[in-house]
Amino acid sequence: MKSLKNKAVVLLSGGLDSTTTLAIAQKEGFDCFAMTFRYGQRHAHEVTSARRIAVAMQVVEYRMVEIDLGDLGGSALTDCTLDVPKDRQDMTQGIPITYVPARNTIFLSHALAWAEVLGAWDIYIGVNATDYSGYPDCRPEYIKAFETMANLATAAAVRGQGRYTIHTPIIKLTKAQIIQQGTQIGVDYSLTHSCYDPNQTGKPCGHCDSCQLRLKGFAEAGLKDPLEYAEETADFSLNEPVEKN
Amino acid sequence: MKSLKNKAVVLLSGGLDSTTTLAIAQKEGFDCFAMTFRYGQRHAHEVTSARRIAVAMQVVEYRMVEIDLGDLGGSALTDCTLDVPKDRQDMTQGIPITYVPARNTIFLSHALAWAEVLGAWDIYIGVNATDYSGYPDCRPEYIKAFETMANLATAAAVRGQGRYTIHTPIIKLTKAQIIQQGTQIGVDYSLTHSCYDPNQTGKPCGHCDSCQLRLKGFAEAGLKDPLEYAEETADFSLNEPVEKN
Repeated sequence: MKSLKNKAVVLLSGGLDSTTTLAIAQKEGFDCFAMTFRYGQRHAHEVTSARRIAVAMQVVEYRMVEIDLGDLGGSALTDCTLDVPKDRQDMTQGIPITYVPARNTIFLSHALAWAEVLGAWDIYIGVNATDYSGYPDCRPEYIKAFETMANLATAAAVRGQGRYTIHTPIIKLTKAQIIQQGTQIGVDYSLTHSCYDPNQTGKPCGHCDSCQLRLKGFAEAGLKDPLEYAEETADFSLNEPVEKN
Repeated sequence: MKSLKNKAVVLLSGGLDSTTTLAIAQKEGFDCFAMTFRYGQRHAHEVTSARRIAVAMQVVEYRMVEIDLGDLGGSALTDCTLDVPKDRQDMTQGIPITYVPARNTIFLSHALAWAEVLGAWDIYIGVNATDYSGYPDCRPEYIKAFETMANLATAAAVRGQGRYTIHTPIIKLTKAQIIQQGTQIGVDYSLTHSCYDPNQTGKPCGHCDSCQLRLKGFAEAGLKDPLEYAEETADFSLNEPVEKN
């Protein structure tokens, strides 16, 4: 049996960003332990994708954690009585209704617990501050503050056995750059799921913030999104493609 | 209906410390929303006590959150294959096996999510750094780091609507002082549960770290613990009682 020297816990939502992040962690030599949350999302397609990706990418262990954020309310991602915004023109304005209170803090806290039990010192999260849709818990200053807290919170760190690092390898990349980098290291984007509001068969809507960012990203990367959309989508190919090295 | 101006989320485990903390929060004028976790504890008595206390102390809302830390392992409080230490003479040495990885971080993260949804800016947690049994996530520097992180993590704080405060009113008190203060403001300690390893009918063992700290605290406070213990307990009354004002 292969010995596990560098273990990392990777938060895997089943989306494009976290899947690319998992591929980067593996590329960087880590034996990856992937963690997905069922947190009362309005649809289960994301979780199904995450499991499929974990299997396809051969993580060492896969853990699905059930937590109920849904009955707290306050977000269009968990509360079916709120509408997911569609075809927003300016997604850089403000914090959208799809924000889930303290979500990344809860996810990272559970990842930290698992890391401590595993004896892992590295946690990967696919947050992105460029195309970040305005979420406060995707910013570098937030990640830094979590890391500081984690190293005060845990017995392993306080005993001086090591230091936790929260890795955010795609935090400063554009969506197009993420897709290009992922494609180069073999990510199969047909397995990923990004839509906030898919139809009943799981096909992405093509109009929510997340679909729009994804479609724009593929167009700018000069690549074709392998997903089939439920409805006709906007044509983002008129945008300037990003430079390819 | 009474208007709710100052809402606080209070973490309530059903133990002596968190119950006193709830009483202090109420005394300080907050309308309290209490949150308890079922996190795979080896026994459910603590959770039963928490619910009883929440009802008796008339919190505005009570929320019981299910999270599964148990199958992560790594702690005698959640893993039945590990023994709870008994009659330890020096509880100030090191971090005991009853430490649960990242527990307070997970609890505070969920409390933060609820606070944001409620529009509350205050979170109370009954951590204690004096008789603290060596847990790293009970220290003031940890709490401060969590607070800093919380104010970067959340939309409400980032929008400048307010600032989260993590209140730790008993962090520097001895167990005896906690019991004295709680008794003065009317806490009914017969409702609380402290034992890590109660018998099947829920009676405390009297020998785990938590029972020993409790018994010693009552003895030093010059008060009688209203709980009935499963076995004969050590006589802590030979200790010097603390000064009463």
